[in-house]
Order: sequence, then C-alpha cells, then structure tokens
Amino acid sequence: MRSTTGWQAHGTTLRKEPITRRDLRPDDISVRVDFCGVCHTDLHAVRSHDGGVLVPGHEFTGVVIEAGPDVTAFRVGDPVAVGNIVDSCGACDMCAAGQENFCREFPTLTYNGTDRHDGSTTLGGFSREYVVREKFAYRLPSGLDPAAAAPLMCAGITVWEPLRALGVGPGTRVAVAGLGGLGHLAVKLAAAMGAEVSVVSRSAGRAAEAIELGARDVVVSTDPDSTAAARDRFDVLIDTIPVAHDLGPYLKLVAMDGTLSQVGYLGSMTVETMDLLTGRKKLSSGGSGGVAATADMLEFCAGHGITADIELLPSGRVGEALDRLERGDVRHRFVLDLSDLG
Amino acid sequence: MRSTTGWQAHGTTLRKEPITRRDLRPDDISVRVDFCGVCHTDLHAVRSHDGGVLVPGHEFTGVVIEAGPDVTAFRVGDPVAVGNIVDSCGACDMCAAGQENFCREFPTLTYNGTDRHDGSTTLGGFSREYVVREKFAYRLPSGLDPAAAAPLMCAGITVWEPLRALGVGPGTRVAVAGLGGLGHLAVKLAAAMGAEVSVVSRSAGRAAEAIELGARDVVVSTDPDSTAAARDRFDVLIDTIPVAHDLGPYLKLVAMDGTLSQVGYLGSMTVETMDLLTGRKKLSSGGSGGVAATADMLEFCAGHGITADIELLPSGRVGEALDRLERGDVRHRFVLDLSDLG
Repeated sequence: MRSTTGWQAHGTTLRKEPITRRDLRPDDISVRVDFCGVCHTDLHAVRSHDGGVLVPGHEFTGVVIEAGPDVTAFRVGDPVAVGNIVDSCGACDMCAAGQENFCREFPTLTYNGTDRHDGSTTLGGFSREYVVREKFAYRLPSGLDPAAAAPLMCAGITVWEPLRALGVGPGTRVAVAGLGGLGHLAVKLAAAMGAEVSVVSRSAGRAAEAIELGARDVVVSTDPDSTAAARDRFDVLIDTIPVAHDLGPYLKLVAMDGTLSQVGYLGSMTVETMDLLTGRKKLSSGGSGGVAATADMLEFCAGHGITADIELLPSGRVGEALDRLERGDVRHRFVLDLSDLG
Repeated sequence: MRSTTGWQAHGTTLRKEPITRRDLRPDDISVRVDFCGVCHTDLHAVRSHDGGVLVPGHEFTGVVIEAGPDVTAFRVGDPVAVGNIVDSCGACDMCAAGQENFCREFPTLTYNGTDRHDGSTTLGGFSREYVVREKFAYRLPSGLDPAAAAPLMCAGITVWEPLRALGVGPGTRVAVAGLGGLGHLAVKLAAAMGAEVSVVSRSAGRAAEAIELGARDVVVSTDPDSTAAARDRFDVLIDTIPVAHDLGPYLKLVAMDGTLSQVGYLGSMTVETMDLLTGRKKLSSGGSGGVAATADMLEFCAGHGITADIELLPSGRVGEALDRLERGDVRHRFVLDLSDLG
C-alpha cells in the first residue's frame, strides 16, 4: 500500500490524516493531486456523514507520478484530470456506448464508491495522491489553468451533457437557473456553443456578472414582470439550483416542446402535469458523463478558453470552504490547493 | 334560445332534463349529437360535482342540422365530429401556431367551460344538440363509423399529439401503459405509424387483446422477469394510467434519451431525479390537440381504418357506463347513443 495524506470526515467536519492508496495495478496511474474542486455533493456527504471512511473530492487535476506497466496513454509528468467516476464494468451496453456513467453495474464513484477489484471504499481527491485506472483519467489540455480546470470534471461535464443531449447550438435559447459552480459553467459553455443565454436569478444584482459570463440578460425570478416577459421563451432551461424547489415557475419559462433539465439536485421532484402539458414541455435530469463526452468537453473548453471562475484556498481551509458553500458565499467554485499536504 | 335534452348532474349522478342552446351566431353550426364517448374526465366531473350546471361529454359525432350565415365549411346534413375544445382567442401566438389547445387565454372547453361571448357555462355532448363555432367542428371522414369515431375526438387526439411530437414512426419502439380508451387507441395509432408497439399491463391475460390491437407483445408490470427483460427498451412510453401512480417502474422501461409521456392523469406527479438522470430520460405530459392536428388525426384514422373499440349503450344507461368505467370494466370505450333523447 502507498501512504499519503487526505481530509477525512470525523462527525460532520474534516480532519487531516494519513490515508493509504492501493499499489498500482497494471493499468493504473498514480496522480499527485494538485487542485480539487469543492462540490455540493461533498458538502452533502460531509454534513450527512454518520460513520465510515469518507474522504470527499471528485473533480481534480494533477500530475502523473507513476504509471503501471500496461499504461499507454500517460507518462510520468503528464498533467491529468479526474472526475466523479473512476471505473465501470466495461462490458454492458452502456459502457460499450461510451456511457460509463450509466454502467448497468453502476460506475465506481471517485469517493464513497466500492472498488470493483478489492472491494475497498474509494477515497476522494481531498488528498495528495490518487490511484486511478488510466481509462478514467484525462489528459489536461495545455492552456487550461489546472486549478480553474478542476471543476470542469464534475460541474462542467454535468452541464455539458444536457446541453449536448438537447442539441444546444447557434440560436438555441438557453436559460440557466442558478449561478453557482454548475450554473456559471453552463452559461460559459452554452454561450460558446452559440446559444442565446439568459440567467434566471433571484436577484437583479447578478446581471453584470451574468453578462460577463456570456449571458445576454437576466430573468429575475422574484419579479413577476420579468418572469412574465420571459414566459415560454427558452428551448432549454438548465436548472442548477442545488435544493428541492418548485419547478412550476421555471417550467413556465420553457418554450413549446422545450426541456427543463434539472441538474442541481438529487432527490424527488414534484411536477404539476399541467405545467408540462401546456406547451408539451419536458422534464429531464442529468449528472456526470461518459469517458468520451468528458474528453470532448475538455477539448471544447481548451478550444474556447473555458475554465471555472474559482476561489483558490489552501486545503487547510476546507472547513471554511464548506461553510461558505453552505451559505452560497462563493464566486463560483472553491478549489482546494492540496500542496499544503506536502 | 334553442331547446334540447341532455344528461345533467344532480349530486354525483346524471338525470335527463331539458337544456337550452344558444341561437346560432353567424359562424356557428348546430349539430344533432348522435354518439358521444364516455371519458375518465366525465367520470371525474360527475363524481366530484358539487353544484352548478354540468352536462358532460366532449367527444362526439353527429350531423349538421343548421348553419349560420357565415359558415363556409359545412352544410346541413354533413357528418361532423367535435372534441374537447370549442373556441379559443384566435389572436395569441399559440392560436396562430395552430395550437388552440394552448391558447394563452385558455381554450373554451366543450363543457364546464365559459363561452367567450356570452359568459355562459358550456354544456357538453351528453345531449341531443350542440351549437359550436364551425372552426372547432371537423368533417367526419366517410368510412369511419360515427359511433366508433367519437372517442377519436378526445382519447384519440390526446395520444396522437405525443406520438407525433415525439417523432414516432417506422421502427420507433413504443410502449403503451394501460389499455383503456386512450391506451388502445395509442396502440392502434402507433402501430399504424410503423412503430414496434408493446403494451405494459398488470396482467398477462391482456396479451391476446394487445396483439389484436397491433402490439407485438406485452410487458407484465407485476412480473419482475418481464419488466427486467424490457428495461431501457422503449424510445417512447405513453402512460395512459388514469390515476396517480409511481412513475419509477415505467421510467425504467424507457430507453436512453427516451421519453415517458403521461397522458392519463391530471395532477401532481412525483419523480425521482435518478430515474430520469440514469439514461437521460425525459418526462412529458399531454392532453388534447390543436385544430390542424385534430384534422390530421382524423384523416390518418380514415386512411388506416382506425376507430375506437367501443361498447355502444343507449344514453339512458349512462349511469351504468360511469359505474363500469369506474371499475375498469370497459373494452375499450363506452359510447352513448343519444337517439333515445328523441
């Protein structure tokens, strides 16, 4: 086993501790983790932690420090990125179709997953080293800042998938609800795809920020005149709001035959039949993506100079990052600098 | 005013009574109602009736007995069909787009609606005469049995719309959940569109019937082997189940990027994010259609010899029809013969 250091949950906070990584299998690489984004999933995992081993973190970048004998795509020193899945069965129809995220045997999650070979619980990227199958690591394109690119690996791919699946391109009218980690990347990606992007926000005060990200305007969800003017306006609405909420007001903004894709929240959604029926609207959801799509997304981001807007903190301040994320006090994603782990 | 006879709600049952119809406006026709289907909406309206004037019925066929001076599309003696909307604003973008069913000012419903001109409550087709704007009446194609064609006007168009909107055609894998009035027409229409149709039913006993309607097989929703074998199989699932139910098991049958269209039930739906997320599935709803789509649907049905499978009852037995519909004892739609009203 290999020794490193990570941020492990004790109760509902994190403590720096020694952790171990597996010895490299033939197709494994070992990554020195430099930067790891802080996702709502991490916050939820820590705050609801009730025992068991938990090291969060599933969007990170770093450098290859060792490669197994069968590794072909990477060499020591290569810059890499890893997202929220690190393995899949490789044999089912979904894996065959490049949708490892929908693997019939469920993909192995980057943390809190179960390794398919040794049965151990996976430990995430809030740590200085991560051992991963090369198939689930991606070469980080040159030109992308490694710290600001880390959030692409979960927040980025999560909004990339519905934008692509829903055919967003030049002229598509896209609304993005919420301007957090997912939302601000959705705005950047959709704008780069050529879409006419609007942001739906509770506050008109976010307008300058939204426009700077690439949006044309802001629909103020608390202003009846603003929402009335935007009724039935958007072909696609990417809803990144990270808590349960009433979908009705957002569905009203969706155009005839359009789709609301809810990507911010995992859980039950209640929807009024009439809100879908009137205008033949659709509700979908999304999260993560397959290996090929993730590679495409990184290439697209490199081509368009897209990374996340981040606040970089030494990993020793992870507690502060979680507290502020909980309060929504972040523009737009916290990224931990793991170099303070040695 | 014109005098006729209809079945009017008293408490939660219907009684035969004299009712009145408006004098013809210039673009009105008067229809002698011969046949009217019995829809779940009618059952719901009668059983939840708590006062006010209520004459149900919104899918009927008959013959023009008088035409206003501006009427151009019909002459006395023409066979006609009327569905569940009888007017709309005609000025909004939805009306302009031929989606009168989504009229911004809400379409006038065939019964329990409010007439846009005199403010009266509309009285439905469980009556011997109906006065309607010619725009919302359709020539009944020759070759379609007028009794069996009546349910096309609500049940038929309600399933036609999602089948068309979701691009069902040759090779599309379509599942239909429920084999009532809507479901059996969805099977017939989808099969005629060239789709590979399956029926999802609680009972394997419905297989012969499903196949006779045009399905290839039945997925038995109560048999785990049957549902496991059909997992992720259907591009489109038309869910006609007329009561609130768990959508999860049905979403599992939907293929990657496929859509479940819920058309049987109006009210709140609860859906698990994961059931949509896994496979990028979509949820939609539907009900009714616009004037152009309704005309297309009738033409398609005439071309393919499609009508509903009905049990025809004299309108005097409407109470029995409602009771049996409540128990699900109908193959597949009751139609009332209004000739017993004189």
